[in-house]
Amino acid sequence: MVERTELSKLGKVAILKHLTKGVKCKHETSGLGFAEDAATINTQPELNTLVSQKLFLEGIHFDLVYTPLKHLGYKLVVAAVSDIYAMNGEPRQLLLNVGVSSRFSLEDLEDLYDGVYTAADFYHLDLIKTDVTSSLTGLSLSMTAMGTSLEGTKTLRSGAKPTDLICVTGDLGSAYMGLQLLEREKRVFAGVKGDFTPALEGREYIIERQLRPRVPVSVLSALQKQGVVPSSMISISDGLASELKYLAEASGVGVRVYEDRLPIDYETAAMAEEFGLNVTTVALNGGDDYELLFTIPLGQMDQVKDIEGLRIIGHITEPSLGACLVARDGTELELVAQGWTASK
Amino acid sequence: MVERTELSKLGKVAILKHLTKGVKCKHETSGLGFAEDAATINTQPELNTLVSQKLFLEGIHFDLVYTPLKHLGYKLVVAAVSDIYAMNGEPRQLLLNVGVSSRFSLEDLEDLYDGVYTAADFYHLDLIKTDVTSSLTGLSLSMTAMGTSLEGTKTLRSGAKPTDLICVTGDLGSAYMGLQLLEREKRVFAGVKGDFTPALEGREYIIERQLRPRVPVSVLSALQKQGVVPSSMISISDGLASELKYLAEASGVGVRVYEDRLPIDYETAAMAEEFGLNVTTVALNGGDDYELLFTIPLGQMDQVKDIEGLRIIGHITEPSLGACLVARDGTELELVAQGWTASK
Repeated sequence: MVERTELSKLGKVAILKHLTKGVKCKHETSGLGFAEDAATINTQPELNTLVSQKLFLEGIHFDLVYTPLKHLGYKLVVAAVSDIYAMNGEPRQLLLNVGVSSRFSLEDLEDLYDGVYTAADFYHLDLIKTDVTSSLTGLSLSMTAMGTSLEGTKTLRSGAKPTDLICVTGDLGSAYMGLQLLEREKRVFAGVKGDFTPALEGREYIIERQLRPRVPVSVLSALQKQGVVPSSMISISDGLASELKYLAEASGVGVRVYEDRLPIDYETAAMAEEFGLNVTTVALNGGDDYELLFTIPLGQMDQVKDIEGLRIIGHITEPSLGACLVARDGTELELVAQGWTASK
Repeated sequence: MVERTELSKLGKVAILKHLTKGVKCKHETSGLGFAEDAATINTQPELNTLVSQKLFLEGIHFDLVYTPLKHLGYKLVVAAVSDIYAMNGEPRQLLLNVGVSSRFSLEDLEDLYDGVYTAADFYHLDLIKTDVTSSLTGLSLSMTAMGTSLEGTKTLRSGAKPTDLICVTGDLGSAYMGLQLLEREKRVFAGVKGDFTPALEGREYIIERQLRPRVPVSVLSALQKQGVVPSSMISISDGLASELKYLAEASGVGVRVYEDRLPIDYETAAMAEEFGLNVTTVALNGGDDYELLFTIPLGQMDQVKDIEGLRIIGHITEPSLGACLVARDGTELELVAQGWTASK
């Protein structure tokens, strides 16, 4: 039988001590604040501090029917640090706040923190402050990520210039198709009596993309090695189309991307066909990929074209040309970003 | 009729632009990140960065039946910066994440942000990054506060030494009694047909303490003026007894406080009597006061004894003496902190 320790049997202090036992700092600048009102980050001249924040709410950002808590903790870290990497910074510290109802046990929290610590080790981060509070309904997770950038190497959304090349890392739409698949199997499961094995075989990649995304750090390292600093950059969390529009607006430019250049994995394409979805729409609007979208000056094409996991998908234009997708048949379509709905 | 703009009619970008329109930085070090993946804090040598985080969930931390959204925004800021002040630091930047369901309109968000901006002006803070996301049920608020402390002037929970004087600011238990009153009127209201006027007259102080707490900055300024740096400090958010125990444990000392020294407002005492509650229990365990608990060396008593809003309530002892309350009749009682329950 799985052990279950009721949170109500422990004081908050005991819960937090248990979850942060043996944590050691990886960065000299990290001042653990587990036992203090605030955490500290020590002075480091020449560096700017970058800070980002993510709020993950049950039923909106994750479904615990198919999301193991460990994966959820891992993904939350990736989502938060992705924004620091997108500024060309190096993430270093994390703060985590968990709102939890009596539905969850100490062992559940252990799984969640296990995922957080695993990701923190992978990305070389210190969790410097954490808190657990009560929640009436679901699980609420808030993560703050802090990082540094050298003065002058920070990359903003506003730096793209006409003729710059538009690049993306990895492939697009796979996390979204993984989500569709998991949602379908959940619906099937709900109607099944007795044993149920979800039909996920041969779809491991898109499921991993949904449940355990990664930040494309190898591409960032390769760029650095080549001495290339992106002129603008943004994390792809809401879908490529949205992010292209953010970037175009922030930089006051137009964008032109080519449908046949969009990086799409085989599993994504196969799954989209099975669901009767247009794969280009999936690649443009599927969220949760946590890949990076960035621009580089045209003159640096040779330095980037052989970098693995990097694809040039178009270029920056004059603002009057708008945000445009060139379809496979040469037709030019205006890029439309999906709207935000409060109920989604 | 009150205007109501559905959030679903606006894109997320439009919502955020609307809510951050015209915001200007108060600190040179603040780099607004409204339009970027992360916010920036510029280098400042000799200073440490302090960071704290608060998660406020509807139904747990606030009840919108009697909490105006503007007050909620204000209180969230106070809760977050209170932790920075408790490290003897100066808060400077805020990041806010809001999870909101379709129950809320743009005007509701305006009220919430209005409260945040009002508090930000009062405490001289910059909101440098904010995000709005969907929520399935209630309102979820996450705030990160950042601040600075001069190298060497940071106050930890662990610095208290035997014979140090234990001080608190303001008065205790008033926010808790305000909450009890508001809860009672809510229950009465639920059973009333037709017009209803809550019976709050003569109870304005305790209601204000619940709905619009303040950080005792004047006491901190007075201490600074007197050249007194507290040897340890903690924000009183969970109740004095809990905080005394945190402080005692972190410093490896005992505490001895006197019942007749606990600062209690007249309204708090009257209300406690009306509710049949022991006012000492209320002062020891009532949360949400956001006052400060701190210790100073015995030799500095003369410098602090005339500071308005500061009360010496006891002293630090050897660890073997434990955490003790000396009752009015001279009896010594062990201090017990209320436990944390996941459903509360």
